[in-house]
Amino acid sequence: MPQDIYDKIMMLAKRRGFIYSSFEIYGGVAGFYDYGPLGSQLKLNIENLWRKFYLLKDNCVEISTPTVTLYEVLKASGHVDEFTDFTVDCKKCKQSYKVEDIIDENISVEKALKKIKVKCPNCGANLKDAYPVNLMFSTKIGVGSARDAFLRPETAQGIFTDFHLLYRYAREKLPFGVIQVGEGYRNEVSPRQGIIRLREFSMAEAEIFFDPNDKTHPNFKNVKDKELYLFDNEKEIKLTVGKSVKNKVINNQALAYYMYLTQDFLMTAGVNPEKFRFRKHASNELAHYATECWDAELFSERFGWIECVGIADRSAYDLRAHIDSSGTDMYALRKYDKPKIVEVKKIVPNMGKLGPLFKGKAGKIKTLLENTEVKDTKKISVSLDGKTIQIPKDCYEIVETKEKLSGEKFVPHVIEPSYGIDRILYGILEHNYHEGNKKGEEYRILKFSPLIAPIKVGVLPLISDEKLIKIANEIDRNLRDADIETYYDDSGSIGRRYARMDEVGTPFCITVDHDTLKDKTVTIRDRDTTKQVRKKIDDIVEYLNEKK
Amino acid sequence: MPQDIYDKIMMLAKRRGFIYSSFEIYGGVAGFYDYGPLGSQLKLNIENLWRKFYLLKDNCVEISTPTVTLYEVLKASGHVDEFTDFTVDCKKCKQSYKVEDIIDENISVEKALKKIKVKCPNCGANLKDAYPVNLMFSTKIGVGSARDAFLRPETAQGIFTDFHLLYRYAREKLPFGVIQVGEGYRNEVSPRQGIIRLREFSMAEAEIFFDPNDKTHPNFKNVKDKELYLFDNEKEIKLTVGKSVKNKVINNQALAYYMYLTQDFLMTAGVNPEKFRFRKHASNELAHYATECWDAELFSERFGWIECVGIADRSAYDLRAHIDSSGTDMYALRKYDKPKIVEVKKIVPNMGKLGPLFKGKAGKIKTLLENTEVKDTKKISVSLDGKTIQIPKDCYEIVETKEKLSGEKFVPHVIEPSYGIDRILYGILEHNYHEGNKKGEEYRILKFSPLIAPIKVGVLPLISDEKLIKIANEIDRNLRDADIETYYDDSGSIGRRYARMDEVGTPFCITVDHDTLKDKTVTIRDRDTTKQVRKKIDDIVEYLNEKK
Repeated sequence: MPQDIYDKIMMLAKRRGFIYSSFEIYGGVAGFYDYGPLGSQLKLNIENLWRKFYLLKDNCVEISTPTVTLYEVLKASGHVDEFTDFTVDCKKCKQSYKVEDIIDENISVEKALKKIKVKCPNCGANLKDAYPVNLMFSTKIGVGSARDAFLRPETAQGIFTDFHLLYRYAREKLPFGVIQVGEGYRNEVSPRQGIIRLREFSMAEAEIFFDPNDKTHPNFKNVKDKELYLFDNEKEIKLTVGKSVKNKVINNQALAYYMYLTQDFLMTAGVNPEKFRFRKHASNELAHYATECWDAELFSERFGWIECVGIADRSAYDLRAHIDSSGTDMYALRKYDKPKIVEVKKIVPNMGKLGPLFKGKAGKIKTLLENTEVKDTKKISVSLDGKTIQIPKDCYEIVETKEKLSGEKFVPHVIEPSYGIDRILYGILEHNYHEGNKKGEEYRILKFSPLIAPIKVGVLPLISDEKLIKIANEIDRNLRDADIETYYDDSGSIGRRYARMDEVGTPFCITVDHDTLKDKTVTIRDRDTTKQVRKKIDDIVEYLNEKK
Repeated sequence: MPQDIYDKIMMLAKRRGFIYSSFEIYGGVAGFYDYGPLGSQLKLNIENLWRKFYLLKDNCVEISTPTVTLYEVLKASGHVDEFTDFTVDCKKCKQSYKVEDIIDENISVEKALKKIKVKCPNCGANLKDAYPVNLMFSTKIGVGSARDAFLRPETAQGIFTDFHLLYRYAREKLPFGVIQVGEGYRNEVSPRQGIIRLREFSMAEAEIFFDPNDKTHPNFKNVKDKELYLFDNEKEIKLTVGKSVKNKVINNQALAYYMYLTQDFLMTAGVNPEKFRFRKHASNELAHYATECWDAELFSERFGWIECVGIADRSAYDLRAHIDSSGTDMYALRKYDKPKIVEVKKIVPNMGKLGPLFKGKAGKIKTLLENTEVKDTKKISVSLDGKTIQIPKDCYEIVETKEKLSGEKFVPHVIEPSYGIDRILYGILEHNYHEGNKKGEEYRILKFSPLIAPIKVGVLPLISDEKLIKIANEIDRNLRDADIETYYDDSGSIGRRYARMDEVGTPFCITVDHDTLKDKTVTIRDRDTTKQVRKKIDDIVEYLNEKK
């Protein structure tokens, strides 16, 4: 059977310790993979490079919240109701399918469901009665009076539900950004694309909060002349960041800035620029929370263009939803130049009445009432847990008062770059895979950037001589003490050992030879040019640090 | 209400962005906490310091496996049957309790269950009929013919189930070590110790595989004269690593070596040596998989001695269990000096018979038969999925043959240092918290080591002057480009800004003043001594890098 590049990469990945199928000894389950020693280090290096872009370049802060997420959070965010796939079960052979997977690409799911002449790919029976299946893994917290929970479908909600605390951390100034790196979960009906469609995956998300009146970015000026690789669903174009915003190809500075940051990160990590583009979501593709979204896509020879990053304008959707459902004050303040004296109608809640009537919810209703703008003094209602509650007249007073306002309250908008780390990792593997034939022997090279290579340098005594081994071990120890990932190898011919290091993407190899004994120098071989330079042992650390 | 140190730390932690209660806007749930911007960075720094000890000092490799874990894995490992707490429900007020939490410390759970005169702490009713509750969060993978799964109670099983692949990665040489860092889960009945007892927590585990005949460690000689802080359940003693093994206080070199590595890591991370000890588990305390275990304990003024690391000898328990349940060859080979010719009785399975009889399990049974030592030629059985299966005689042949053996197969033993990162983080907060009164004002200092401090350096223009601000911003940018975490602050008096940095444990503050304009120097203030040194702007990065 001829192998395509995916097969080749996954074989190399298993053989050399990048990626294994999870639970393989118990038959495995689609949608779960393990990262082996090299895959895990590669993933960590990609994540840490990503952190540098967001924490150090862009001044975001990071938080870390649980993967187990309370029902109430995901009810409010819309995931309980909207995070679904249309699914159809075969009555005959009992297989379940995601409708999207088994219909023609050009037909929408809605259309397919109406026409419904789809046949079971397994047994050929006619399929009907598709139904929405929620894609969250469900669980319960505690025993007895247990509470419903899900594994988070995105890390973002952990950031939104802490917004008021993070706003205080940011000393009440916008814009500010918060990132989270960690697992996300999606209980796919029947995932069939290997490492590309996982049920448990690694995400890196940034939520940047903006005043909706001001979606400029302080660093925009530094990137406005850089070119973005765009695809408008018809043709691919290169356009500067500045022009993209000016010509309304991209809605605002903030979106365009984070698109460029994303492109810069991906290229730095080793994505091939010729296999990269941003594609704009059509309006019927948008997630339930998004008003505009661009996908960063990487081209794969097996899968075609795959989405690896989504950069969405989530507007005020999520914060508004949590304010309405929880009654928490999650507003930001737009300060006036000088305080204004205004006449306002204020609702003064009467807790003596609200308490007995609404019990546990009374406190939240009080907060909501105090933040309600009075339009119709005769009818006052609040939204809580998705319901509109009419408040009886005896539960409040409306007073007219003069108030000194330091600013006006508003719900911030959110720009969200959301990265699928596993797909980026696979894309980097595919884009950096090279193979060929040298003197009758097959070779494979992963041309990883030194920034993300799981092993930075191989340390190899030229031959198996005790004196050389001793020095090589010392060099290895010193490099490790300097936080450089090494791989010591003294078995087999030097050519074979170089090949082993090339195959796992190690950018440099140090060889200790007989001259080392004389003049304390070694050779350092470059993976891509195979050229060797002679360096003093004492200068190795500096030489390698300059290369990364 | 007088506050103890825990209250004070948790208040500071919330106010300054270290730790928040999860889902607080929806009422919160015990056992879940969020790490805010400073807490998340502190946790990451602790984890990365830990990685340096295990990956770079100790040559382990890291892997990363899913948190969602297949039922079969945890059935085999014993967690489905053994990972339980005795629980009792109050028939009157409907509260549930972990028995251990509501009985006298001196009584064992078994005794309490027999005597059972325990009263409900909530309503005072008599409690009876305790029952074991499994502590794993349960979920299902897929729809329709869904598969049972749990959230992992430890990261270790992901390593054990990949053992055969990792053994190949280690080029079939023992000992070798594999680490994993990530979430663990324990669905506590009713957790009541704040951040100390979490339902979702961060673990860092190492599994080091040894030949059971040789539990020496290659680096043992480097640490044998170092002192360990031991507690034998009666008194605290200091004993060198070497003597601990010689005197059989600690069973073997491997255990003692990893105990010292643990102690060294914790002290480096900032644990107070006077509030640290190793305590040996009594035999009735041991987990179901352990033959010997030492806990690294940290002293807390609120909680007393708390377990933060368990260092266990898991012997061959887990690998043996997975071999028996899955039929996978997970043996290691102990090579002979030269191959031996031996007469052996070998089982030659007959797949023509095994196939129809055992269907999907036939392959596994074949592997098991080939690895079975023939003792009784008339009765052959194998263990699979916890059951003993008699194999009919027509399913195999027994042949006597001479075989050239390169070595003998065995199941490796495992030494496991398992770290609870959240407890270590809390311990470091408590051990490094200092408070007092200076000129009538309260102050608080977190004396974090520069190695783990979430912010390495504050960058402060002395006064709010445009020229100073411009230089301070440039310094801030340059430090960030050099991967140093900074915090820029130009608001409030300089004293107030120092105090803000002290309170979150920032070890250094750079102040830009009018002299900076003249001679391009700044002051660098040390948090603990409050002494200031004058340095050239160009030398700041080097100065700070030397300090960490």
